[in-house]
Amino acid sequence: MSDALDATLNATHDPALCSWVASANAAGCDFPIQNLPFGRFRRAGSGEAWRIGVAIGDQVLDLRAVGLTETDDMNRLMAADPGERRALRQALSRGLAAGSGAEGAWRAALLAQAAAEMAVPCRIGDYTDFYTGIHHATTVGRLFRPDNPLLPNYKWVPIGYHGRASSIGVSGQAVRRPMGQLKGEADAPELGPSRRLDYELELGYLVGAGNAPGCPIGIGEAERHLFGVCLLNDWSARDIQAWEYQPLGPFLSKNFATTLSPWIVTMEALAPFRAPFERPAGDPPPLPYLDAPGHRAHGALDIVLEVWLQTARMRAAGGPAMRLTRGGTRQAAYWTPAQLVAHHTVNGCNLQPGDLLGSGTLSGPAREEAGSLLELTLGGQQPLALPGGDTRAWLEDGDTLVMRGYCERAGAARIGFGEVCGTVVAGA
Amino acid sequence: MSDALDATLNATHDPALCSWVASANAAGCDFPIQNLPFGRFRRAGSGEAWRIGVAIGDQVLDLRAVGLTETDDMNRLMAADPGERRALRQALSRGLAAGSGAEGAWRAALLAQAAAEMAVPCRIGDYTDFYTGIHHATTVGRLFRPDNPLLPNYKWVPIGYHGRASSIGVSGQAVRRPMGQLKGEADAPELGPSRRLDYELELGYLVGAGNAPGCPIGIGEAERHLFGVCLLNDWSARDIQAWEYQPLGPFLSKNFATTLSPWIVTMEALAPFRAPFERPAGDPPPLPYLDAPGHRAHGALDIVLEVWLQTARMRAAGGPAMRLTRGGTRQAAYWTPAQLVAHHTVNGCNLQPGDLLGSGTLSGPAREEAGSLLELTLGGQQPLALPGGDTRAWLEDGDTLVMRGYCERAGAARIGFGEVCGTVVAGA
Repeated sequence: MSDALDATLNATHDPALCSWVASANAAGCDFPIQNLPFGRFRRAGSGEAWRIGVAIGDQVLDLRAVGLTETDDMNRLMAADPGERRALRQALSRGLAAGSGAEGAWRAALLAQAAAEMAVPCRIGDYTDFYTGIHHATTVGRLFRPDNPLLPNYKWVPIGYHGRASSIGVSGQAVRRPMGQLKGEADAPELGPSRRLDYELELGYLVGAGNAPGCPIGIGEAERHLFGVCLLNDWSARDIQAWEYQPLGPFLSKNFATTLSPWIVTMEALAPFRAPFERPAGDPPPLPYLDAPGHRAHGALDIVLEVWLQTARMRAAGGPAMRLTRGGTRQAAYWTPAQLVAHHTVNGCNLQPGDLLGSGTLSGPAREEAGSLLELTLGGQQPLALPGGDTRAWLEDGDTLVMRGYCERAGAARIGFGEVCGTVVAGA
Repeated sequence: MSDALDATLNATHDPALCSWVASANAAGCDFPIQNLPFGRFRRAGSGEAWRIGVAIGDQVLDLRAVGLTETDDMNRLMAADPGERRALRQALSRGLAAGSGAEGAWRAALLAQAAAEMAVPCRIGDYTDFYTGIHHATTVGRLFRPDNPLLPNYKWVPIGYHGRASSIGVSGQAVRRPMGQLKGEADAPELGPSRRLDYELELGYLVGAGNAPGCPIGIGEAERHLFGVCLLNDWSARDIQAWEYQPLGPFLSKNFATTLSPWIVTMEALAPFRAPFERPAGDPPPLPYLDAPGHRAHGALDIVLEVWLQTARMRAAGGPAMRLTRGGTRQAAYWTPAQLVAHHTVNGCNLQPGDLLGSGTLSGPAREEAGSLLELTLGGQQPLALPGGDTRAWLEDGDTLVMRGYCERAGAARIGFGEVCGTVVAGA
């Protein structure tokens, strides 16, 4: 926690700080100089090797071109200890600040984001998806078990399961509607394209330095092992899921695609947007391995999250996307990123740089804060009304789904995550 | 299937074939010239980079040293198409055969296995664990649901879930007893070392050439995407599992360690040990995407599997290990490797070279064929009697678990998998 506090006090967060990259100073810009997220980029269409970039305004700064790193390997950069990461942040902040003597040299290392192609931000060895959204778990549980929506372990165990790393893509991904076994009223299932395709609004926590096998990471050290946060869309085929998931959990209903936003917002950048870890009155306190004083004071994140939909028809009509959801992490997440790290490793499981921990669907308590169609339409029973008389119970081919996230607080500069978008296309 | 048949007819399987490596010709040797499995090795203690080796008798042949590959990257070799793989097998068989002119040159490329250190045989990007052992699923299901042991999806869906790649180790691994949340009679769970530590006897199917995202692999092509098979011990903490696994499946109860045997026995080597894919009378036929005529004739594998236990006390007394189990795949596996590949990709999920597909616990119908203590001791209720008056309900610190596998058939040379062993050590 002291890292977060140090960084909060750090000059890199000063809301008065401006950049010589003018677009970074525009109101509402996701990437002001107080943010400085990392991604992998190349000139679009060049086919060159991926390089490490930092988003500033509407530009990407080439990190190696300005001599701030010797590697193009994001995972190596992520493995650095927090001291090195803070030093890199300070160097970036100084070099990009208005009046910096570096401006002349660094300007040549900028590429317009509009001219850049982005990759999945790092090599992801293992992907774990958690289930920290208690309102999501409750609403979904109620659809199956009206009298007992939350299972007895939920408030004790940060529930999680392993996801598929190979099918993780970056924003802009075309997601082919998956085929799978569908079980209706007939005795036998049949193979067909999913008819209940959904999204899930999540955050992705990316691991920095790893741990050795057999060596758990204590809750007090857990944040030192987190590099940063991105947006994550956990595409889900509800009909495939319902038939396949007993007894070992979701599999083909989830592993056809997972889409990430291209920019990793660092834990250092998020320091002003931390919040106390609190439990509703009457809930059990976390077991000691998931609890620590500093963690209680600052363990949670305060991020606003939105979901937008644009159908093919809306796009053809030139109309805007429609917001389906605005919510945030404060009320949605029952477990913090540090708790996920401590839990994941308590048995000795080793995390590695670049590993991805999904938050699970982050739905707030209100319907308009729900992070999936499963919740918004109550399992398809109450389709959403769209412009032009359309409705949506589930995603249709041509639908583009966009998730956005940002942090705002009085006395701090607003920072954003950019977006993760994806479009559903017909199956093969 | 034609690949398997071609190979069956191939001279590389001729049981009369002998090698100039004398140890390969010994009765009962796992690695005769008809086998030729691949692994990654280096001289023990050298700290050198891993190289690709082929086991022959009690020796390892250095594949690059004899000019049969230009790479030390096993995953690249695995990605080769079946034609290239067959050509490599033929070249190995000719070069290692008694009377080969290559003997003089190749002898210098041998290293005694006793002087070699082995790695996990390839880089495993994603690990999926299936649940193909129907007797295992039935016995375990009966412990929880006496009247309805098999869930309704079992005979339709090759049930699987994602495992953890980072904690996969190679034979010889010391497995630290995991800590985890244990839920007894008290209202609250507590953190403690697992008291119900178990193993699971599995095969690991390793993917060769992958598929592009969105492009399923048909059942008729599925075996072209399999490189080979190894032994797999899926260590499991039953008490952690019982409390954590609802609703998303096993997580920390499994991901602390998974141990593989070091040698990948290729699909080509297994060609003489194929068996028909058969279903018990009255069971539903597989859906068309999991069925094909060639697959019915040859889709299954016929491998004998054994589990042996040696406790610290047995070792100290100089006694031999005790066999707990002898069973085989024929009666144990409800789904074939090709069905797992077709199912895994039917939704468009992409497999990559080196990906690992676990079979799930391969228990036969009889108690002495059971592949886990959970089954052998009926959930710990009937501990096993060991030499010297000891008993075992679950694994104890110091216990060494060894799994072995081999194939025998009249008219074919016996081939073996070697072994996967691991020893339980006390938690941190």
